[in-house]
Amino acid sequence: MGHSTDEKHEKKEMDTRSLSSSRHPSLNMAYIHKVGVPPKQNLFKEFKATVKETFFSDDPLRPFKDQSGSRKFILGIQAIFPIFEWGRRYNLTKFRGDLIAGLTIASLCIPQDIGYAKLANLAPQYGLYSSFVPPLIYAFMGSSRDIAIGPVAVVSLLLGTLLQNEIDPTTNPTEYRRLAFTATFFAGITQATLGFFRLGFLIDFLSHAAIVGFMGGAAITIALQQLKGFLGIRKFTKKADIISVMHSVWGSVNHGWNWQTIVIGATFLSFLLFAKHIGKRNNKLFWLPAIAPLISVVLSTFFVYITHAEKNGVEIVKHIEKGINPSSVNEIYFHGEYLGKGFRIGMVAGMVALTEAIAIGRTFASMKDYQLDGNKEMVALGAMNIVGSMTSCYVATGSFSRSAVNYMAGCQTAVSNIVMSCVVILTLEFITPLFKYTPNAILSAIIISAVINLIDFQAAILIWKIDKFDFVACLGAFFGVIFLSVEIGLLIAVSISFAKILLQVTRPRTAILGKIPGTTVYRNLQQYPDATKVPGVLIVRIDSAIYFSNSNYVKERILRWLTDEEEQKKVDYQPRIQILIVEMSPVTDIDTSGIHALEELYRSLQKRDLQLILANPGPVVIDKLHASNFTNVIGEDKIFLTVADAVSSCSPKLVEEA
Amino acid sequence: MGHSTDEKHEKKEMDTRSLSSSRHPSLNMAYIHKVGVPPKQNLFKEFKATVKETFFSDDPLRPFKDQSGSRKFILGIQAIFPIFEWGRRYNLTKFRGDLIAGLTIASLCIPQDIGYAKLANLAPQYGLYSSFVPPLIYAFMGSSRDIAIGPVAVVSLLLGTLLQNEIDPTTNPTEYRRLAFTATFFAGITQATLGFFRLGFLIDFLSHAAIVGFMGGAAITIALQQLKGFLGIRKFTKKADIISVMHSVWGSVNHGWNWQTIVIGATFLSFLLFAKHIGKRNNKLFWLPAIAPLISVVLSTFFVYITHAEKNGVEIVKHIEKGINPSSVNEIYFHGEYLGKGFRIGMVAGMVALTEAIAIGRTFASMKDYQLDGNKEMVALGAMNIVGSMTSCYVATGSFSRSAVNYMAGCQTAVSNIVMSCVVILTLEFITPLFKYTPNAILSAIIISAVINLIDFQAAILIWKIDKFDFVACLGAFFGVIFLSVEIGLLIAVSISFAKILLQVTRPRTAILGKIPGTTVYRNLQQYPDATKVPGVLIVRIDSAIYFSNSNYVKERILRWLTDEEEQKKVDYQPRIQILIVEMSPVTDIDTSGIHALEELYRSLQKRDLQLILANPGPVVIDKLHASNFTNVIGEDKIFLTVADAVSSCSPKLVEEA
Repeated sequence: MGHSTDEKHEKKEMDTRSLSSSRHPSLNMAYIHKVGVPPKQNLFKEFKATVKETFFSDDPLRPFKDQSGSRKFILGIQAIFPIFEWGRRYNLTKFRGDLIAGLTIASLCIPQDIGYAKLANLAPQYGLYSSFVPPLIYAFMGSSRDIAIGPVAVVSLLLGTLLQNEIDPTTNPTEYRRLAFTATFFAGITQATLGFFRLGFLIDFLSHAAIVGFMGGAAITIALQQLKGFLGIRKFTKKADIISVMHSVWGSVNHGWNWQTIVIGATFLSFLLFAKHIGKRNNKLFWLPAIAPLISVVLSTFFVYITHAEKNGVEIVKHIEKGINPSSVNEIYFHGEYLGKGFRIGMVAGMVALTEAIAIGRTFASMKDYQLDGNKEMVALGAMNIVGSMTSCYVATGSFSRSAVNYMAGCQTAVSNIVMSCVVILTLEFITPLFKYTPNAILSAIIISAVINLIDFQAAILIWKIDKFDFVACLGAFFGVIFLSVEIGLLIAVSISFAKILLQVTRPRTAILGKIPGTTVYRNLQQYPDATKVPGVLIVRIDSAIYFSNSNYVKERILRWLTDEEEQKKVDYQPRIQILIVEMSPVTDIDTSGIHALEELYRSLQKRDLQLILANPGPVVIDKLHASNFTNVIGEDKIFLTVADAVSSCSPKLVEEA
Repeated sequence: MGHSTDEKHEKKEMDTRSLSSSRHPSLNMAYIHKVGVPPKQNLFKEFKATVKETFFSDDPLRPFKDQSGSRKFILGIQAIFPIFEWGRRYNLTKFRGDLIAGLTIASLCIPQDIGYAKLANLAPQYGLYSSFVPPLIYAFMGSSRDIAIGPVAVVSLLLGTLLQNEIDPTTNPTEYRRLAFTATFFAGITQATLGFFRLGFLIDFLSHAAIVGFMGGAAITIALQQLKGFLGIRKFTKKADIISVMHSVWGSVNHGWNWQTIVIGATFLSFLLFAKHIGKRNNKLFWLPAIAPLISVVLSTFFVYITHAEKNGVEIVKHIEKGINPSSVNEIYFHGEYLGKGFRIGMVAGMVALTEAIAIGRTFASMKDYQLDGNKEMVALGAMNIVGSMTSCYVATGSFSRSAVNYMAGCQTAVSNIVMSCVVILTLEFITPLFKYTPNAILSAIIISAVINLIDFQAAILIWKIDKFDFVACLGAFFGVIFLSVEIGLLIAVSISFAKILLQVTRPRTAILGKIPGTTVYRNLQQYPDATKVPGVLIVRIDSAIYFSNSNYVKERILRWLTDEEEQKKVDYQPRIQILIVEMSPVTDIDTSGIHALEELYRSLQKRDLQLILANPGPVVIDKLHASNFTNVIGEDKIFLTVADAVSSCSPKLVEEA
């Protein structure tokens, strides 16, 4: 490129006169600063920089720089298994924290797991299995110190709904379970693949607002489904939408509700909610809501055992398989029609699980101010689900409620997950028979009290305050889940998120600038009403990169500003506009369509006898304007460093002509 | 909002001291300008403004403002049928131009139509039908003065390919034709709906680069398919990809090529290309390439007729149905399995047809500097295809080649389309039997010479120069079409376009700013290498709105800049960084996730004992920062109008501490 070298020469000869001179404009144009053209990078470098910024923006290889071969190997092992890094600094004080935290989350997870497995239409032991293997794997590979791994409500519900669309869990329990493992396997593969190829940013496309709405809707759906166990209804709809569920509930009000069940459920739900309330009021009592579920299970089981309430229609768990996870490698469908279905379901469930885990990881990492590599996390989560799928686990991820308890109980490292895991093994080996008389109503009460936390009113109110469009996305996802289904709610959430991105790039903002009195600063007239327009000049700022998706709009919008302004001038008998200054500071990039649009704008202005001036094009833009020869079309001397320079350059001309 | 009124008061008391004073920083903060907070709009107004900017950005109701009722009615009719507006100013001089242009494009379209119908696997008369009704309708409803309406090569090929995937045109010609009309009907419905709901901006999502690649690929695919007619091969593959076609061509080289056919085809192809060459060289001879195809048809038909070459294996047209379009209302599938298929095919073909027509309309409108309402155009194009589908036409749109000829022949209005339409009627009524002996090779030669223009090397080279990523999109679409199929090429083009948009919003640019010597202007250090950093201060500019899709990246990127800078400082023994100034000028919007990210950034900085300062947040951003209470978190006095203000406010502090 001939231009860039020329420009570089000129830049070295730059004059040092201050921009404040622009208020007493000199006719000698050489005194005004030139727009810099960055040195031309070669294609490979440019490409490398883009790839790096897209996929390796967190610079994961930084520690490997300037290290010896063996050191690199050790660092590599530590990168895959962070436990070998932080494990060396592990000590008894830390273990004390982790032990208490681990025991606390174990007491919370055991009753939850049994309930969540039912959400996924699986036998209770599969929930416990999923709290044994995945947390162990995660402890070795994960880098979050606070996350608590295991089955979670929303993913269990989503998985259950998606699987049940394919196979009926009551008539074909074996095939259903096999499909569940297949889906879990592919959920893990999806997660690990996204992480390995550093595509973690894809989960950023689900907006915060959409997640808030989706989670809230899922929580209500789950709570409503618990009415089956809570009210002791035997004939219950299989659909999850609010209308079907309420229909089922009211339809069975006269001869389907079981009062004993309701009494047990309501008593313990009140207890759980009260414990929660106390825990919120007094942070030191955080352990009370954490162990309340286990206490409820113990008390209610004992109560049912001595009163034989199960003979009066109180439904009980009946049977939980004893012993640790059996292998399920042979149960995964690696061919046949269920392969594709398992893959599809696994992908969706895996992505949702990822979103939840990464959100939790980031939240706590930012609270304790440590870095979390999202992509590495994904590999860890993926690996734990792949191994999980071979050891009779279904999709596990980070749980909001248990992670918060973990954090408050003073966990130090992922060892708290190992502790929890050990407690779960002991439970599986020795205690499961004791759950026989646990009433289902208790499990329902535990799930209801757990998912209530997912309804985040505060966040919804904040979203309403900050961004109305986000609020619509939030509501859309929420109502989609409760009135239609989890999948549709999720689809709505994703679609609205994308729509917002597309809208953003299709309709960028533009602003008319005015001079702030007594300065050489030009700002948006809407924001600074006392800024003044320059007579005969219209200054427009384009607030976005100019791409194919908006180039035509930008061109037409500028022309419309011009028409508006000219009509206004006619009314006010002011001098007509002779110059259009386009402030390009926020225009970070331009593509071929954008340059076409600028050319068309230039041609339209010429026909109207107006001059086009550009102010402060960025490095990429000026480079492309040169490459496309547009700088020569409008003239190099029509491109200025600042709006003030541009105005001062044209003011004398306006005076001459006036 | 309490803030906004406070702010407004302060703004009125603004001091008029120039910003250049920041070089001699005053300790009195009151002298520095405050960031303006725009007056709070009510929710409805805000919503209305967004909707207007999204769907009515071209302000179509502007002429209706302040008009009487009857005048509004007339304007409404004129808006739907622009012919009633320009028709009143129509005169003989204009008609002369339109007559000549109309006759020229008619002579060009007749042979092209016959060939294009074959691309769509339809009998030749359907091409002619489609050049009769749609142009008439368009002339009444369309607002482009230069577009020439009729069947076009790419849409014919696309339609043919998609239809043939559903029904075999040789074994089921009737059902195939019915599905073609169904698809045409829904193509029209799609186009009219998009226009009516003002969703025209959706076609902007197909990037220029992707279109260039797709068109080039389609042109080559079409040209290759013509080898069948050109070489006189009887057994030819039905697939359209280059490998299958070349296999067919070489497989039949010994006993499938017909030398008489090749001689006729090659002779006239040379003639056509020569005529094109002359037309390009001398703009006054534009009519030569325009009538060359008709001359070729006449000469070759006469030649075959007298030599009876058809008996030596030269394939001829044989039969074209005489008479004008029969009704096809009853042939459209309004129910049954083909309804859905027709809808899907029609939607795709309709969108591609729209893209082509709108691109042509815009090009010529900008050349003659008149406004074109894209949405109104879509309604016109949709209406013409809906009527067309009921009168035995298949999807028609604007043709690049014929529109260019129309323009060069001096067309003035859409009347040239009416003239062409009349010529086509006469042809259908009287001349079709004469086409009986027209050799297929001539039609192939005409199509080849027509589609060659769609391969736009110049555009591809420009794209390569300007934007490498765009070039990849272009190549992707090109190779997708020629090696796989038109649909896949189109899918690749759309996907790459979207990927680019998503990449843009996921990985916005950030830049480190420095002070340009002798000014108070802060600019990208990469672009202005002689700009200097302020000791102890890091100034980062974020070059995009902060949304959920990039909020996390932006936060981490800023922290990475900080780490890089601190490492650099350690090496250079410079004072450590105490202040981070974030220049927010290009940040046009922020959502809840963005504010979370800023809060997290603020917390991280606090832990590192760094101060966060914001410079020049825009109206929307400052409003949301207030709404979320973030301004109070970091302190109102940490937000400045310009980077220069921010620097001057913290310089004394740095001096104190140093």
